[in-house]
Amino acid sequence: MQKETTIYDIADKLGISATTVSRGLNNNPRINKNTREKIHKTAEEMGYQHNTLASNLRKRQTKTIGILLHEVNSNFVTSVLAGIEKVVTKEHYDILITHSAESGEREIANATNLLNKRVDGIIVSLAMSTKNIDHFTPYFERKIPIVFFDRVMNDADCTKIIINNFSCGYNATKHLIEQGCKKIAHITADLTRNVYNDRFLGYKKALKDHQLTYKKDLIKICSLDKAATIEATRELLIQKPDAFFVTNDFAAAVCIEVIHEHGLRVPEDIAVIGFNNDTLGDLITPKLSTVDYPGILMGEVAATELMKKIKLKNSNKKFADQTMTIPSELVIRESSLKSQKKKS
Amino acid sequence: MQKETTIYDIADKLGISATTVSRGLNNNPRINKNTREKIHKTAEEMGYQHNTLASNLRKRQTKTIGILLHEVNSNFVTSVLAGIEKVVTKEHYDILITHSAESGEREIANATNLLNKRVDGIIVSLAMSTKNIDHFTPYFERKIPIVFFDRVMNDADCTKIIINNFSCGYNATKHLIEQGCKKIAHITADLTRNVYNDRFLGYKKALKDHQLTYKKDLIKICSLDKAATIEATRELLIQKPDAFFVTNDFAAAVCIEVIHEHGLRVPEDIAVIGFNNDTLGDLITPKLSTVDYPGILMGEVAATELMKKIKLKNSNKKFADQTMTIPSELVIRESSLKSQKKKS
Repeated sequence: MQKETTIYDIADKLGISATTVSRGLNNNPRINKNTREKIHKTAEEMGYQHNTLASNLRKRQTKTIGILLHEVNSNFVTSVLAGIEKVVTKEHYDILITHSAESGEREIANATNLLNKRVDGIIVSLAMSTKNIDHFTPYFERKIPIVFFDRVMNDADCTKIIINNFSCGYNATKHLIEQGCKKIAHITADLTRNVYNDRFLGYKKALKDHQLTYKKDLIKICSLDKAATIEATRELLIQKPDAFFVTNDFAAAVCIEVIHEHGLRVPEDIAVIGFNNDTLGDLITPKLSTVDYPGILMGEVAATELMKKIKLKNSNKKFADQTMTIPSELVIRESSLKSQKKKS
Repeated sequence: MQKETTIYDIADKLGISATTVSRGLNNNPRINKNTREKIHKTAEEMGYQHNTLASNLRKRQTKTIGILLHEVNSNFVTSVLAGIEKVVTKEHYDILITHSAESGEREIANATNLLNKRVDGIIVSLAMSTKNIDHFTPYFERKIPIVFFDRVMNDADCTKIIINNFSCGYNATKHLIEQGCKKIAHITADLTRNVYNDRFLGYKKALKDHQLTYKKDLIKICSLDKAATIEATRELLIQKPDAFFVTNDFAAAVCIEVIHEHGLRVPEDIAVIGFNNDTLGDLITPKLSTVDYPGILMGEVAATELMKKIKLKNSNKKFADQTMTIPSELVIRESSLKSQKKKS
């Protein structure tokens, strides 16, 4: 393996210390101009590969931000990514993405790796199985800016960009109740994740406010993959629900398929509403009612906050952590319009 | 901003050169044991943050691989990612993902950034607008292993993991012809990308082999996003085709929606086949016929090849570049079964 020229080789060649070479290469005024020029000339002659990163480390900036994602395969996450890219590329920052595939363990490894790559800041959405945010302590200690989005720790004291999952869950359920539904099933995921728990609490509150009793038997918590969703839907159908509130659009589409396989109609027999407003929603039959999740805006806000924090940090200023809530709204299509179908 | 302890601070404290400190921290035998211990002790006392990366640079290994993706929002790409993760995490490598969002310019910036992060190797799928692979020259020069998958340069001399897009395009078209279709429209993307061009050539060859004349008017090249696909389908419907071969499943689903909006039936009036076998395919009505794209396997093979190359490089051995073709097959569902529908 052909050896790379190091500052030690340049030092030997010039008969000076590697420290002097290193300082010379970084134009440290403590090294006199002639020596500096000699060092640069020799470095060039010897084909020295200047290590941008190492020099950036000295400047303590890499012009790179890290993004820790819990998944990549959803329109929501790609929209967030697009929003982030729009903002940071304008500021000439590179982006390194890591993927936890919902594994807390992987997330910890990714956080450490990005720290070693000395990113200037990170944007984080927590994995399904993440139990706490201790693995970000080194970032907090070194004052490396962090912005959490969507999947956050409600109690953690840091900058968070979220939607109001409670009111979204409340409004989705209220809409189903207004359609005449009285027995509303809910398919969701691990309630230790804020987004799912808040939607669930909104669902419960809506039932309560409309004098409907909450029944454990109408709730299924699963991984939301196809097999798990099919099983959850089948088990819930035994309870004869007249509506399903499903916590993402893919699972809602699978749920509708299973309902059809049981010879039942959507929305006439069972109304269905999803969550996220993924592109698949208006490609299925009936078109899926859902909750719009403004991913691009969320990404833009997260990135703008991070850029602010980085600039403040570089000018030794403090930044105040805050929670910002992005507006989101119901998107009513065919799958939930039970009352109108009955009229017609 | 609280200053980070550097080897220079340790050197000043101990009254020795930074070179000695650096060598001592890396247990260079040229530094005597006592001095090394003294250096380590002082470094610890002064809270010196050992820069893993810098020390890895010296070892010329970062135990990190880079992945350059052209997009993230498709089941195919996430499957490939899952396949890669399965292999490299077993080998205790971290992964850094970059996203070109189909921009060749972004891809060049990402390639440079990952080079600066000194990844041990990269796995690449080319962006739609990438014109050549000159931006990977620094990798080739430094013998940093590269594996291209799916979106590759056919003429480039490097390791490629692909499927046989020509025969897939041929078989998809042949299947439509066997269903009695004689006027087969084709919606695809920029033909400078091998995957689209090869499918297109397979389509043309299948027509030729079955004495059907190729008509330019039946081809639409577009970005494959929703708006572009709607427009392409509408324009093609003017030609009164009896089938559509669409180069990805999302676009095929949009195409079917537009056909329905025109009061035509799928497959009775127009047969449709997509490409990729995305999850949405069997959630839409009618269920979509498509070409299975074994993403997980492709990712596993790409990662296994990269790990091999890295090991060989680390033991100063050469590796032979090769093109590996992953098997793929037609998945026939309802959207293309015109003849049977007619029978029934």
